[in-house]
Amino acid sequence: MSNRWIQPGDNVDITNERKKCTFDIEKMSAFIHGGEDKLQRRREILEYVKSNKSLGDPQPIEFMTRNERVENASRKIVEMTNNTDQIDGSDFFGEGMYYQALTMGRDLHAMSLHYVMFIPTLQGQTDDEQLDHWLSLAIARAIVGTYAQTELGHGTNLSKLETTAHYDPKTEEFVLNSPTITAAKWWPGALGKSSNYAVVVAQLYTQGECKGPHPFIVQLREMDTHKPLKGITLGDIGPKLGINGSDNGFLLFDHVRIPRRHMLMRYSKVLPDGTYIKPQHSKLGYGTMVFVRSIMIKDQASQLGAASTIAIRYASVRRQGEIIPNSGEVQILDYQTQQYRLFPQLARAFAFLFAAYEIRDLYMKVTEQLTHGNTELLPEIHALSSGLKSVVSWDTAQGIEQCRLACGGHGYSQASAFPEIYGYAVGGCTYEGENIVMLQQVARFLMKAAEEVKKGSANLAEICAYIGRKGEQHSRFTSVDSYRDEDIVSDLEYVARQQVFRAYEKLRKAQQQANSETAWNSCSVELCKTSRWHVRLYLVKNFLAKVSTAPSDLRAVLHDVARLYAFDIITSSSGNFYENGYMREDQMNEIREGVYKCLHRIRPNAVSLVDSWDYDDRELKSVLGRRDGNVYPALLEWAKQSPLNKTEVLPTFDKYLGPMMREAKSKL
Amino acid sequence: MSNRWIQPGDNVDITNERKKCTFDIEKMSAFIHGGEDKLQRRREILEYVKSNKSLGDPQPIEFMTRNERVENASRKIVEMTNNTDQIDGSDFFGEGMYYQALTMGRDLHAMSLHYVMFIPTLQGQTDDEQLDHWLSLAIARAIVGTYAQTELGHGTNLSKLETTAHYDPKTEEFVLNSPTITAAKWWPGALGKSSNYAVVVAQLYTQGECKGPHPFIVQLREMDTHKPLKGITLGDIGPKLGINGSDNGFLLFDHVRIPRRHMLMRYSKVLPDGTYIKPQHSKLGYGTMVFVRSIMIKDQASQLGAASTIAIRYASVRRQGEIIPNSGEVQILDYQTQQYRLFPQLARAFAFLFAAYEIRDLYMKVTEQLTHGNTELLPEIHALSSGLKSVVSWDTAQGIEQCRLACGGHGYSQASAFPEIYGYAVGGCTYEGENIVMLQQVARFLMKAAEEVKKGSANLAEICAYIGRKGEQHSRFTSVDSYRDEDIVSDLEYVARQQVFRAYEKLRKAQQQANSETAWNSCSVELCKTSRWHVRLYLVKNFLAKVSTAPSDLRAVLHDVARLYAFDIITSSSGNFYENGYMREDQMNEIREGVYKCLHRIRPNAVSLVDSWDYDDRELKSVLGRRDGNVYPALLEWAKQSPLNKTEVLPTFDKYLGPMMREAKSKL
Repeated sequence: MSNRWIQPGDNVDITNERKKCTFDIEKMSAFIHGGEDKLQRRREILEYVKSNKSLGDPQPIEFMTRNERVENASRKIVEMTNNTDQIDGSDFFGEGMYYQALTMGRDLHAMSLHYVMFIPTLQGQTDDEQLDHWLSLAIARAIVGTYAQTELGHGTNLSKLETTAHYDPKTEEFVLNSPTITAAKWWPGALGKSSNYAVVVAQLYTQGECKGPHPFIVQLREMDTHKPLKGITLGDIGPKLGINGSDNGFLLFDHVRIPRRHMLMRYSKVLPDGTYIKPQHSKLGYGTMVFVRSIMIKDQASQLGAASTIAIRYASVRRQGEIIPNSGEVQILDYQTQQYRLFPQLARAFAFLFAAYEIRDLYMKVTEQLTHGNTELLPEIHALSSGLKSVVSWDTAQGIEQCRLACGGHGYSQASAFPEIYGYAVGGCTYEGENIVMLQQVARFLMKAAEEVKKGSANLAEICAYIGRKGEQHSRFTSVDSYRDEDIVSDLEYVARQQVFRAYEKLRKAQQQANSETAWNSCSVELCKTSRWHVRLYLVKNFLAKVSTAPSDLRAVLHDVARLYAFDIITSSSGNFYENGYMREDQMNEIREGVYKCLHRIRPNAVSLVDSWDYDDRELKSVLGRRDGNVYPALLEWAKQSPLNKTEVLPTFDKYLGPMMREAKSKL
Repeated sequence: MSNRWIQPGDNVDITNERKKCTFDIEKMSAFIHGGEDKLQRRREILEYVKSNKSLGDPQPIEFMTRNERVENASRKIVEMTNNTDQIDGSDFFGEGMYYQALTMGRDLHAMSLHYVMFIPTLQGQTDDEQLDHWLSLAIARAIVGTYAQTELGHGTNLSKLETTAHYDPKTEEFVLNSPTITAAKWWPGALGKSSNYAVVVAQLYTQGECKGPHPFIVQLREMDTHKPLKGITLGDIGPKLGINGSDNGFLLFDHVRIPRRHMLMRYSKVLPDGTYIKPQHSKLGYGTMVFVRSIMIKDQASQLGAASTIAIRYASVRRQGEIIPNSGEVQILDYQTQQYRLFPQLARAFAFLFAAYEIRDLYMKVTEQLTHGNTELLPEIHALSSGLKSVVSWDTAQGIEQCRLACGGHGYSQASAFPEIYGYAVGGCTYEGENIVMLQQVARFLMKAAEEVKKGSANLAEICAYIGRKGEQHSRFTSVDSYRDEDIVSDLEYVARQQVFRAYEKLRKAQQQANSETAWNSCSVELCKTSRWHVRLYLVKNFLAKVSTAPSDLRAVLHDVARLYAFDIITSSSGNFYENGYMREDQMNEIREGVYKCLHRIRPNAVSLVDSWDYDDRELKSVLGRRDGNVYPALLEWAKQSPLNKTEVLPTFDKYLGPMMREAKSKL
């Protein structure tokens, strides 16, 4: 079988790995990326990005100072958005994300929030007249906007934001103010230095009453000079764990006046005399949130896939230690412990990617339903996407670190790209809804479902139908070979259901002794566990179902990966499966052996499985994960670019260490 | 009770927390740090460091470029070592580590390896004449040395190092050479720019035979100009996940000649004619390794303690969300989920610190025994310290990230210090023996013990006596309140013993089907689990024992912490306790409730518990973890120092974003 990943001059070990592949890689890549046409488009976008030198970095960004990184990112984002005709702008989930990943790497940039939050907010929250005015400016890039909601002292709980917008009917203006330091807007991407506009969320006061948080469009900087406007203090919030090419910022208002019509008035309005008009619909934007989540989940899957690719490729070229004495050092990928560290991460990446596709499709289904006024699926899918966001971002972060640690010392170097990948991905545990808060939202939904089941009034959609099912009393497992997909799902459903009702009963009991909120808090750890099982069940089910739709010659290898994913979950939480005698120890021991069997079966295809994710070196930006496996000379070349190596002797040698040694010597 | 941590002007919430404290903090601090005299010395060292402005940073290091950090670190290390008379040099475990932590923070520096590896190697490996010559130079700081062993392509497996030292009897010299790129020395701290000497480990060749890796002392740079000597290529290996103030380096030799007597000849020798004299003892340095491990474990405990301190203090001043509607936002420390994230980390920090003390004491006991030729305890303690190193470094890294994530968005900022703490601490999973390799070493020891037990010939020392005990068939647990320390230990012993014999049987079976090494590899995941249980058992046992020696008025609160540590381990691995019907579900459910009870009991003392670790703001270097709790104004002040804020408008605005917007505007 031809294999486009094998090229002359490659490391011999990695080539041998590729020759062992038992499936058609191109077909697998097409399956992973949603079809041959999508794969073809990836290749075209890659060619374009490679051909446009201005979309590249003059040197690896890890050698740049933060100011240089911010400048470099702003240069590239202008060039990138100058050339959006190269991609299908309507397909951000596919082409847009790939184009951006190739160009901007793992740093956000001056216009991240412009596209992801500023423009969508204008589209969703302005009335027609406002939309005409602002949207054209934003789309033409005549202004650069961000979205300023979070404050120094306030995150998740919007109702307590402190920034105020007092309406003054005399001048028909709002007065924006930050009454305290904790009211400072804090974190918005590109707020510090790049943006000259922002949608600002502030507590609206009119006619002496607070009407809660509302969005306003606010000019922050002068158009020509880019200097902050009077009454506005803003700046960069400093370096972070990751995304240091982005100027996340802070913003303080000192009685800044904006015209009345700068309040975004699609839903609520303030009339010239100060009369407040309430919004007609209260819960909006659920749909968009689900779409943003599907993108996040895909992005996380992609980061974990990249980490797996780097670590598995490196483990195939790194030789260390001998399994059999005097028979030569082995590829570290041959160690069972190494496989146990790495392959489950790859399996997770698949599980998460397939879930992202599914959420995107569900989003489209719900959007379609909503146009007919049908909101049936909305709560279920909103809960699922919140839960997925939490579980996926956490497992991704953990998985990336496992991949990094599996590369030993070299994983610690920024040459590996792991520090950058981790810093970027782990942010997903916090932004777009802190994970623990998200899990509790999911739990509220599940507790409602449990209540309905108890009352016999449940009408549960497919995703949580298991809560209402009776299910088996004992696992149907007899042997790993005869362990069918539906048995696996049934076993996970048992545990998920048990946990739902365990939490439900605990909560009910607690509610008899305390008010409902205190009771909830006293059960919150168990409630979070409940949500996690709900999500894990979904991930396994969806993964197995997806595999069954794969071209028949891909199914065997994908099935190994999916089963590894499921078996790993089951054996890592064996206690849950033992409860009420549902599973026996001999069954669990067999499944544990099943994990090792899966590792063994995946081993020969491991490199090709990651190849089929179709990462170009341009996207990985990792010396350890190079396609050609020629890691060591590349590490040396990379290191030589370190700014410390600009001179043979650091200019500061003569200030400290030199005099110290000379003085000591003179005294001896 | 007076509380030195309460001061005027502090945040009200944190002061109220401190007022709730039920124990004597000073007494607790003394207990944690090994006595009142030790605590007193800490305070004196702190005063000195604060009083010497040259030991401080001109600005927070997170705003410096890497070159600036390296320069700053080299300035401070010279000043620090100019003033070693301020501490008791014989007490590195106590005073030395504290002095260094206060001065150098979480960056290593130009002389880290000079003191930790270069000088000890000289002391251990030179003959008397060599020692006279080199040790005085090193101690006087007339030379700066490092220890160069690891190579680009070779880490753990020393026998395959590629650097060669060929003896030439004609000139009585060794010729050092790096025959390949993978032979490049890679990673040694301070090798890139700072050191002018190194102990280099190379394969010794004489009279046509390879005698394996041996240490040589090699001059790398000219004394005066600090330029690399002829035939020597060296430099910095580039930025890393952490410790970026250190110039970890690479080194290549092109047939560099050194005198015969630059081979360190305490054990092996090469005579002028090339005759090789074998070492008399083969296994040496075990003792030193144990000492280094005790320091590492203490350092890890200290990092996790710092992370817990930051997160718990911040959780006491951060208010977000309402548990009871309209009753005001609560301290996030009141959420059960937050307590469940944070308190187990604090409990681990205690467990690890107490283990470090114990290992240090055992080291001294063993050293004492060794002087009488008694090596009885050595293998046991070596195995234990290897296992502790693995479990502690992994749990510490995980724990730090939990603390960081529990601080939400602000945890992601470098102002929190978490990115720095994590980057520094997680390195411990890899250096001084990669964790998975370490765990397998421990497992070899445990399998030998199991074999002896099976044969009835076991003579096990206390640490692994449990392997030979019969133990209970069922847990003695009846209720959380009556769950005695010895019952807890007995339950953990059951699981640890089960796992030892499970792995042993699996290994024996595998050995019947394959050669011993392949069999080992096929069981290695289970073997690592075995080692982890061995260590966890030790940690719990040691923690409970240590608490029982605490002053009586401290015992109650410490006991809550120790039990939380144990209950968390038990409930996180419930499956292991269910096996063979050892524990019942109702017992496990009670222990799970016991976790929540411990959280509840620890809650009022949480801030004071971390206060009693006695971290000064100078050591924490965290805006979120400030003693005074005045986090928000400090965050704003910190951010203002960001290099991006030096000008209101970035100079690059007129290069990219400015022209883009102007052009767009002109076209509208």
